[in-house]
Amino acid sequence: MPGLILLAVMALGACTHAPRSATITQVSTIGSLMLGQYHGHTPVCELLRVGDFGIGTFDHLDGEMIVLDGVAYQALADGTVRRCDPDAATPFAVVTTFRTAEHSPCPPMHNLAELEAHIDAATPAANLFAAVRVEGAFASLTLRSVPRQSPPFRPLAEVVKEQSVWTRGPAAGTLVGFRCPPWVGNINVPGYHWHFLSHDRTVGGHVMDVRLDRGTVATQVCRDWRVRLDPDDAGQTLDLTQDMSDDLERVERLRGSGDGHRD
Amino acid sequence: MPGLILLAVMALGACTHAPRSATITQVSTIGSLMLGQYHGHTPVCELLRVGDFGIGTFDHLDGEMIVLDGVAYQALADGTVRRCDPDAATPFAVVTTFRTAEHSPCPPMHNLAELEAHIDAATPAANLFAAVRVEGAFASLTLRSVPRQSPPFRPLAEVVKEQSVWTRGPAAGTLVGFRCPPWVGNINVPGYHWHFLSHDRTVGGHVMDVRLDRGTVATQVCRDWRVRLDPDDAGQTLDLTQDMSDDLERVERLRGSGDGHRD
Repeated sequence: MPGLILLAVMALGACTHAPRSATITQVSTIGSLMLGQYHGHTPVCELLRVGDFGIGTFDHLDGEMIVLDGVAYQALADGTVRRCDPDAATPFAVVTTFRTAEHSPCPPMHNLAELEAHIDAATPAANLFAAVRVEGAFASLTLRSVPRQSPPFRPLAEVVKEQSVWTRGPAAGTLVGFRCPPWVGNINVPGYHWHFLSHDRTVGGHVMDVRLDRGTVATQVCRDWRVRLDPDDAGQTLDLTQDMSDDLERVERLRGSGDGHRD
Repeated sequence: MPGLILLAVMALGACTHAPRSATITQVSTIGSLMLGQYHGHTPVCELLRVGDFGIGTFDHLDGEMIVLDGVAYQALADGTVRRCDPDAATPFAVVTTFRTAEHSPCPPMHNLAELEAHIDAATPAANLFAAVRVEGAFASLTLRSVPRQSPPFRPLAEVVKEQSVWTRGPAAGTLVGFRCPPWVGNINVPGYHWHFLSHDRTVGGHVMDVRLDRGTVATQVCRDWRVRLDPDDAGQTLDLTQDMSDDLERVERLRGSGDGHRD
């Protein structure tokens, strides 16, 4: 076996190649999720083979996923957070192996838009992907999660009308986020997508807004993007070319109708 | 070292996972190429590490690339074909490791659209990627290649107005193609994209039309899609969100102005 490997290395010996870039791996597309493909098809343990940092959701849309330092957590619609079952499956998730050691200090931020502008200024490569880790003391966080769904599944834009939204803080914790280039269309979320997990692992969810007292930012630009498509035949007849940008904005960034608001 | 590997395997032992899907790897995006990013940034030998079957172009847009059975060929605008230099670089290419052993017989086809409809009927998973290999005796082929460009580079839709188009046949050879899902937008070419290489390695190019007397088709559906983005900073300010579908159709499927037509 070592002989074979040596042989392979020798055969490719003439090829000098650049250092590998960091890889972002996603399971399925945001378009499929938007259209109600909530059946988990990829075990979380599979995800953790290709990343130790990331975000996503669960089978039947049962809460928000946060992957941090190689552990996957589940923030449920009742506001509780737990380590997810090893055999839990996901219909949509995004992960990377986060290797950036350098954390830059971050001044206080009044809201999420301000924080994103700060990161944009420091990392202008807008046509590449970036994973962003913000460690901080947050004065307040507006978070949401979604309740477990039953088939037949409705589109995500319908479901989030019943999302639970709550405000927490002050809290110390981590923002786990990705910035995708504007051209990802219906494949992932153009711009930023953040989930949060408190240091004591009791508070978490999809982030709608934050107020940051002090913190640090670590960014990892990724040139290598990997999409593992849903093996489910049902997903193959979906029209993923339709314009979902308004619904996506509503789903990812705006608060719901308020019915589920819990302070 | 073997101890470490064993430890890693044991740590992940609880995770049962599905068999891996075939992977399609692409270098850069068709959108970047459309906007004139013709600087080769990835050596062909790098490509051949991740695929033995594929299509692409070369640094300065110097001809059409065909990767077949692990060898990369270059079809130049003067109609000649050569094995490409080991240190040639590409600004855009798509490859896979082609593993499908089963070749289905294919009836005579009057044109490319008929052949594509035949493949669609046999492989309806339109939201996944597919690599397609057609071995055949072709009554005729309409091929094109593009001349090497000099900076400042013009958009591809401008360049193809000067493309060389020629008709060849009868010829025995291989169609090397990919079918991308309609939702790939500006990232790759939605639908089919074919290059051709004759068995005697003297005729090749981007395929605009074919007439097939008899042949076989082998298809490999790919769920795992990998995009390695251009490290060139210049590429990072391009607007890759604009609608390029008309230009893309013109570039990939239609014949040029005819100035360069050579029979």
